[in-house]
Amino acid sequence: MLVNCVAYQNGKKLGDIPVADISEYVMRPECFVWVALFDPTVDEMDEMAKEFDLHPLAVEDARKGHQRPKIEEYDESLFVVLHTLEPMSDATDAALTDGEVDIFVGPNYILSVRHRTQKGFADVRSRCEREPALLRYGSGFVLYALMDTVVDRYFPILDGMESELEQIEENIFVRNAARSNIESLYALKQKLMLLKHAIDPLMEATGKLYGGRVPQVCTGMGEYFRDVYDHLHRIHATIEGIRDMLTTAIQVNLGMISLSESEVTKKLAAWAAIIAVPTMVAGIYGMNFEYMPELKWAFGYPLAIATMVAVDVYLYVRFKKTRWL
Amino acid sequence: MLVNCVAYQNGKKLGDIPVADISEYVMRPECFVWVALFDPTVDEMDEMAKEFDLHPLAVEDARKGHQRPKIEEYDESLFVVLHTLEPMSDATDAALTDGEVDIFVGPNYILSVRHRTQKGFADVRSRCEREPALLRYGSGFVLYALMDTVVDRYFPILDGMESELEQIEENIFVRNAARSNIESLYALKQKLMLLKHAIDPLMEATGKLYGGRVPQVCTGMGEYFRDVYDHLHRIHATIEGIRDMLTTAIQVNLGMISLSESEVTKKLAAWAAIIAVPTMVAGIYGMNFEYMPELKWAFGYPLAIATMVAVDVYLYVRFKKTRWL
Amino acid sequence: MLVNCVAYQNGKKLGDIPVADISEYVMRPECFVWVALFDPTVDEMDEMAKEFDLHPLAVEDARKGHQRPKIEEYDESLFVVLHTLEPMSDATDAALTDGEVDIFVGPNYILSVRHRTQKGFADVRSRCEREPALLRYGSGFVLYALMDTVVDRYFPILDGMESELEQIEENIFVRNAARSNIESLYALKQKLMLLKHAIDPLMEATGKLYGGRVPQVCTGMGEYFRDVYDHLHRIHATIEGIRDMLTTAIQVNLGMISLSESEVTKKLAAWAAIIAVPTMVAGIYGMNFEYMPELKWAFGYPLAIATMVAVDVYLYVRFKKTRWL
Amino acid sequence: MLVNCVAYQNGKKLGDIPVADISEYVMRPECFVWVALFDPTVDEMDEMAKEFDLHPLAVEDARKGHQRPKIEEYDESLFVVLHTLEPMSDATDAALTDGEVDIFVGPNYILSVRHRTQKGFADVRSRCEREPALLRYGSGFVLYALMDTVVDRYFPILDGMESELEQIEENIFVRNAARSNIESLYALKQKLMLLKHAIDPLMEATGKLYGGRVPQVCTGMGEYFRDVYDHLHRIHATIEGIRDMLTTAIQVNLGMISLSESEVTKKLAAWAAIIAVPTMVAGIYGMNFEYMPELKWAFGYPLAIATMVAVDVYLYVRFKKTRWL
Amino acid sequence: MLVNCVAYQNGKKLGDIPVADISEYVMRPECFVWVALFDPTVDEMDEMAKEFDLHPLAVEDARKGHQRPKIEEYDESLFVVLHTLEPMSDATDAALTDGEVDIFVGPNYILSVRHRTQKGFADVRSRCEREPALLRYGSGFVLYALMDTVVDRYFPILDGMESELEQIEENIFVRNAARSNIESLYALKQKLMLLKHAIDPLMEATGKLYGGRVPQVCTGMGEYFRDVYDHLHRIHATIEGIRDMLTTAIQVNLGMISLSESEVTKKLAAWAAIIAVPTMVAGIYGMNFEYMPELKWAFGYPLAIATMVAVDVYLYVRFKKTRWL
Repeated sequence: MLVNCVAYQNGKKLGDIPVADISEYVMRPECFVWVALFDPTVDEMDEMAKEFDLHPLAVEDARKGHQRPKIEEYDESLFVVLHTLEPMSDATDAALTDGEVDIFVGPNYILSVRHRTQKGFADVRSRCEREPALLRYGSGFVLYALMDTVVDRYFPILDGMESELEQIEENIFVRNAARSNIESLYALKQKLMLLKHAIDPLMEATGKLYGGRVPQVCTGMGEYFRDVYDHLHRIHATIEGIRDMLTTAIQVNLGMISLSESEVTKKLAAWAAIIAVPTMVAGIYGMNFEYMPELKWAFGYPLAIATMVAVDVYLYVRFKKTRWL
Repeated sequence: MLVNCVAYQNGKKLGDIPVADISEYVMRPECFVWVALFDPTVDEMDEMAKEFDLHPLAVEDARKGHQRPKIEEYDESLFVVLHTLEPMSDATDAALTDGEVDIFVGPNYILSVRHRTQKGFADVRSRCEREPALLRYGSGFVLYALMDTVVDRYFPILDGMESELEQIEENIFVRNAARSNIESLYALKQKLMLLKHAIDPLMEATGKLYGGRVPQVCTGMGEYFRDVYDHLHRIHATIEGIRDMLTTAIQVNLGMISLSESEVTKKLAAWAAIIAVPTMVAGIYGMNFEYMPELKWAFGYPLAIATMVAVDVYLYVRFKKTRWL
Repeated sequence: MLVNCVAYQNGKKLGDIPVADISEYVMRPECFVWVALFDPTVDEMDEMAKEFDLHPLAVEDARKGHQRPKIEEYDESLFVVLHTLEPMSDATDAALTDGEVDIFVGPNYILSVRHRTQKGFADVRSRCEREPALLRYGSGFVLYALMDTVVDRYFPILDGMESELEQIEENIFVRNAARSNIESLYALKQKLMLLKHAIDPLMEATGKLYGGRVPQVCTGMGEYFRDVYDHLHRIHATIEGIRDMLTTAIQVNLGMISLSESEVTKKLAAWAAIIAVPTMVAGIYGMNFEYMPELKWAFGYPLAIATMVAVDVYLYVRFKKTRWL
Repeated sequence: MLVNCVAYQNGKKLGDIPVADISEYVMRPECFVWVALFDPTVDEMDEMAKEFDLHPLAVEDARKGHQRPKIEEYDESLFVVLHTLEPMSDATDAALTDGEVDIFVGPNYILSVRHRTQKGFADVRSRCEREPALLRYGSGFVLYALMDTVVDRYFPILDGMESELEQIEENIFVRNAARSNIESLYALKQKLMLLKHAIDPLMEATGKLYGGRVPQVCTGMGEYFRDVYDHLHRIHATIEGIRDMLTTAIQVNLGMISLSESEVTKKLAAWAAIIAVPTMVAGIYGMNFEYMPELKWAFGYPLAIATMVAVDVYLYVRFKKTRWL
Repeated sequence: MLVNCVAYQNGKKLGDIPVADISEYVMRPECFVWVALFDPTVDEMDEMAKEFDLHPLAVEDARKGHQRPKIEEYDESLFVVLHTLEPMSDATDAALTDGEVDIFVGPNYILSVRHRTQKGFADVRSRCEREPALLRYGSGFVLYALMDTVVDRYFPILDGMESELEQIEENIFVRNAARSNIESLYALKQKLMLLKHAIDPLMEATGKLYGGRVPQVCTGMGEYFRDVYDHLHRIHATIEGIRDMLTTAIQVNLGMISLSESEVTKKLAAWAAIIAVPTMVAGIYGMNFEYMPELKWAFGYPLAIATMVAVDVYLYVRFKKTRWL
C-alpha cells in the first residue's frame, strides 16, 4: 500500500507526485523524492524497483522480509533493514510483535517499506518538513530521522523490561512465588533476546556511518549518526545488564526453591516427631502383658498423658528455637 | 560416480564432454567446464586431479573427507569445503546426517564432489543455464550459486529447530513433563552444535570473498558473496540465540524439577499429618490402663471419632489454604 | 542553579563574572572560564548554550540526562558524561544513588552540570587554584581534575563492596545463613552492575585521551589522562573479580542449601527409625492372640522395654557414627 | 640418548655421521643435518648446544622441559615445543601421558628432543627419505613433517573422546547411572583440558608460519603449514564442541539426579499412604471403649479388613494413574 | 628502609655509595646505580624522587601502593609495578599475602621498592654480579632479572594450587566429603583470583617490551623479555585451566550432594517400609473385634510373626537388588 509519495526541493515540499513521475524527479539534481510503503504488493515493489533502479539483491531481500537488521552499500545507494518491536497489548508483560522496516536510500531518493508494523512515520515526515534547514541535507537526513525514530521507540520497551525485572526482583525472596517468578523470568528473557537481535547487528552497522570512510549519502551527518550509535550502545549495555541479572536471578530463584523445600522438610520432620512420640508411648501402654504395674495405678493414665504432653511441649519449644518450626 | 561433465562458453552450454577432454577445454580462455561427482572412487578423483591439475594437498583433503568447512586459496584456484545437513526422516525432531561438498574452483573450471549427501545440485545447474547473463561471469558465479544453495538449505533445518524449541518452551512449565523436556533439550542442543560447526568456520571464510583483497575467481561478484555472508550471519545469530535460550531453558527445567519435588514433599507432609493424628488418638484410647474414665462413657467412642474427624478437617482446610494440598 | 562562574588567566583567578559576560571572556585567547551548574533549569541551560555556543546534540543530551558515560568530540570541544554513585546512607550495605555530571570542554571554557549528585566540586576548584602551574594548562587540566575526582570517589564504594563480599564469604559456610546470604549476594550484584555501567564505557572513552590522536584540549596532558585510565582499569579489574566470585559464591550457596537439606533428611530418617522400632515392638505385644506365651511371663514387660531401649541405643550410636545425627 | 644423527644433501641421505662432525656438516651450504634425541642427559644437550650453536634461553627451556607449546624465533633459527599425548592403556577411557618434543630448526639442521614420549619419529624419517623432491626443501620440510605427525597423532585421541562422550550421552537418561555418568564426565573433562592445552597455543603459533612475514626456514612451505594449522583448527573446534556439550551434559545429569530423587519421594509418599491408612483404621478398632457397637458385629472384622483393602486398592490405582508409583 | 645502594660500571660493581651521591653517579654515562628500598618512609621516597628526578605521578603511585601490576613509560624511564605472593605458612592450603614491588628504571639507574614482601632480591643482585657480560646491558638487564625472579616465584604457588586441586579431585566422589570439598574449592578459587590479578595485567604490559616499538631501556633485550612473557603466558594458561576445572568441580560437587541426598531418601524409604509393614499387621491383630477367628488359633501368634518376618525379608532383598539399601 502506498502511504506517501512526495518530492522535496531545497528542504521544502514540492507536493505529492504520481508514482510514474518518480524516475523523472530523481533525475533532477537539486530534488529528492521520499516514498513510504506499507506491506506492498509484489507489483508495487516491482514498480518501485523500476522507478528508483534498485539493486535486485536488495529488492529480493525486501520482498522476502525477515532479514536481520543491516546496512548494505550498493554503489551510491544504501539498503537499510531495521526491526520494529511493538507490544501486543497495554499490559506490562505483553508479548512483542517483531516488525521490519526496509529503507532504500540513494543520493536523491528515500523509500521506506514497513512490514508488520502498526506505527507509521507520519510524525517523522512532519518533523522533517518543519526543519527545512536540516531537510536540505537531503535523503541522508531523512535516513537519520527514520533511524533515530525507530531507535527511540525501543526505549519505552526497554524501560518496560527494566520495570518487569524490578517487579520480579521484589518477588524473588517472597515465599511461594518461585513458580510465577521463574515463568516471568523466562518470558522476560525471550523478549530480551528479541530486542537484542534487533539492536546488536544494527549497532555494528551504524558504526560504519560515521568516522573513517562513510557512504556518500551520509557525508557531513557524522555527528547525527554517532548520536544514533550512542543510543544503540546505551540500549545494548542495558540489555547486557538485564541479561546478566536474569541469569543471576534464575540461579537465585533456584536457590530459593531449594531453600523452601528445605524448610518444608524441616517442618515435616518436626511435626512427625511431635506426633510419633505420643504414639509410641501409647503403643507401649497398649501392650497386653499381664504384669504391667503402671496399668493398675490410679494415676497411670493421667501420668501417661502428662508425659506425652510434656515431651511434645519440650520438642515444640526446641524446634521453635532451631527454627525448624 | 560422475554426475555431469559439461562445457560452457559465453554463458551458454556447449554440451556434455568426455572426461578425457576436460584438460583441453580448460585451456580455451573463453570456455569453462563444470563437473559434478558423487562419492567418487579413488580412480575418478585421480583422473580429475590430473585433468584439472589440482593441488595435491586439496585432493588429499577431498579424498579423506571429514574436513571442517573452509575456503583455501591455492595460487589461482580455490578449494571450498561445505557441510550439508539433511534430516534423516520427516519427523520434526529427526536426527541430521552430516554430509560434505568439496568444490575446486579455477579460472575456467569448477568441480563439485558430494559425499554423504542425498540432494544433488541439478536445480542449481538448470537455474544457472536459464540465466546466461550471470553465467557469463564464469566459475565464480557457479561457486556463488552452489554456496547460496547449500546455505539456503540450512534455513528449513534452522526453522525446524526454532519450532522444536518453541514446542519445548510450551511444555516447560507443564507439570510432569520435566523428563521428556530435558531429553528434547539435550537432543536439540546436539543438533544445534552440528549446524554451528557447519556455519561458523564458513562464515569466517566467506568474509574473505568480498571487500579487501579478493581471490581472482570471485572478482566482481562482491555483492553476491556478501549476500551469502549475510545469510550465514543471520543463521549464526539465530543459532547463538537458540543456544542461549537452551541454556536458560535447561536451568529453568531444573528449577521446575525442584519445584515439583517441593510440591510432592508438601503433599506428603500434609497427608502424613492427616493420617498420623487419628492414629495417635486411637493409640491413646488403645492403652490398657484400668482407670481411664472416658472408656466407660457411653459417648466416648463417638466423641473420639468426632475429635479425629474434626482435627482432620481442620488440618485439611489449613493445608488447602497454604497450598500444601 | 548556578554554583560558580569564574574567569581565569594564566592559571590565576580573575574573579567571578556575570553569566552574560561569558561569551566575551571566552573570546580572549589567554583566558578561560569555568562554570558549574547544579540541576539547571531549561532557561539556564539555554543561556549557557548560547554563551558558549554549544552543539545542539550535546545540549539535548545534557538536558535529558540519563546518558551512558561517554566522551564525544564536537570539532574543537568535548562533551563528557560521567556517572556519580553516592551511598544513600552510612550503612555498609546501603543502596546507591546514580547521579550524572555532564561536562562541556572547549579550548577556553569548561562547564560542568551536576544532576542528582549531592557532593559538589568545590574542593576540585580550590585544589586547582592552589596549583597555578598546572592550572595554566587551561580547561584540559580542569577536565582531568574533575574526572580524577569523580573516579577517585568510586574507590570507597568499591572498597565497601569488597568488604560486603568478605562479610558474606565469612557467613557462606555457616549453617542456616543461606537465606540472608543469598539476599546479600543478589543485592551486592545489583550494586556492582551499577558501578560496572559507570566504569566500563568511561574506561573505553578515556583510552582515547592519550596516545595516538588526542583531542586538541587534552594535548600535553597524556600522562595525566593515562593515570585516570589506569584507575578506571583497576576498578574494572576489581569489579570483574568480584563478579566472578559472586557467581561462584551463589553456586556454593546453592550447594550449602542442598547440603543442609541433606542433613535434615538424615536427621529425620534417624529419629524416625528410633521412634518407629519401639512402636513396632509395642504393636506386636498389643496383639490380642490368645496364645502369646510372653504375655504371661512375669518379666515379659521389663524385657520388652529393655529390648526397645537396647535397639534404640544401638541405632543412636550407629547414627552418631555415620554422622546422621 | 642419541637416536639418530644423519646428514642429507640435495634431498638424499649422505649417511650417519658422528656427533663431533655435526658443526662441520652444518657449515656446508647444500647440506643439512637431522638429529633425534630421546630423554638426553645434560652432557648430550650441552654437546648439541655447542655443535649447533643453539641459543642459551632455548637450551635452558629444552633442558627444564614442561614448556607450553610454542614456536619461538631466534635470529635465523626456530625453537618449537610440541606436546604429545599417549593413552596409558588400550581401554577407551585410559588416562593420557603428557609428553613433549622440543625441536630446534636452523637453515641447515634440525634437532628433535623427545621427553616422556614412547612413540618415536622413525616413520617420519623414512617417509621423508622416500620423497627426495620434498626433502630438498631442507629443514623446513622436516619441521613440517614432524609437526604434521604430532598433530595427526592427536586425532585418534580426539576420536576416543568423542566416542566416550557418545557413550556417556547414551547413559545419561538411564535411571541409576547418574553417579558413574558424573564420574565419567569429569574424567573426560580432565583429559579434554590436557588436549586443549596442547592444541590452543600451538594453533596460535602455527598461524605465524604462513601468510604475512614468515620465518626464513619456512619460506615457500606456506601451503603445508596452513594445512597443519587447518588440522589444529579442526581439533580446536571439536574440543570446544565437546566442552560445550560436557557442560550441558553435567547440567542435564544434575537434572536427572533431581528428577530421580523426585521419583523416589513420590514412591515413598505413595507407599507410606498405602500402609498408614490400614494402620489408622486398625488403631481405631484397637481402642478400648466399652460401647463400640461394631466390635460386637459378627461381620465387623471382615468388614474392617475389606474397608482397608478397598481403600488401599483405590489409592494404588490412583497413584498408578498419576505416575507416583 | 634502605637495603642497598650500589654503583656499577661496565658490568662491575664500583661499591656502595651514599644516597646523596646518587644524582652525581647517574650523570656519568657509563655508570648505573641500583638502589633497593623496603617499606620506605615518606622522607626516603622524597629523597629518591629528588636524586633520580622521578615523575611525580609515579612517585605518588609508589607511595600509595595498592596499584595493579603495570608497566608505564615516562619519557626515557619506566615505572613497573609487580605483585608478589607469599604463602602465610607452610601448609599446602595456606593463605597468601599480597605484596608489591615498584621498580623505577631509567637509562642508568634502577630503584626497586618492596612493600609487604618478606623475600628480598639479594640473590638477584649476586646472580647479576656474577655475570658481568650481561650486567653490562645496564638497567634493562636488571629489570629483566627482577621481573624474571618475581615471575619464577609464582611457579611454586601455582604448583601448590594444582596439587590442591588434585587433592580435591580425589575427594570429590568420596561420600560425605561434600562440605569440606566445597569449602576447599571456594578457598582455592579465592587464591587463584589473587594470582590471576597479579598475572594478567602484567602479561599484557610485558608484551610491549619486545617486538614492535620497545622502550629505550629494554632495547636489545627482546629475547629475554619474551622469555618472561612466555612464563607469564604459561601461568595464565594454567590459571584458566584450573578456573575452568574449578567451575566444573563445583557443579559436580553439587551433583554429588544431590546424589547423596537421593541415596539417603531411598534408605529412609526402604527402612520405613520394613518397619511400617509389621506395625500395620500388628495393628490389625490388636483390634478388639469379638469375632476374629485367628486370635483363637493356637498357631495364630507364630503365624503372624512369621508373616511379618517373611514380608520384611522379601522387602529387604528387593531393596538390596534395586540398590535402595
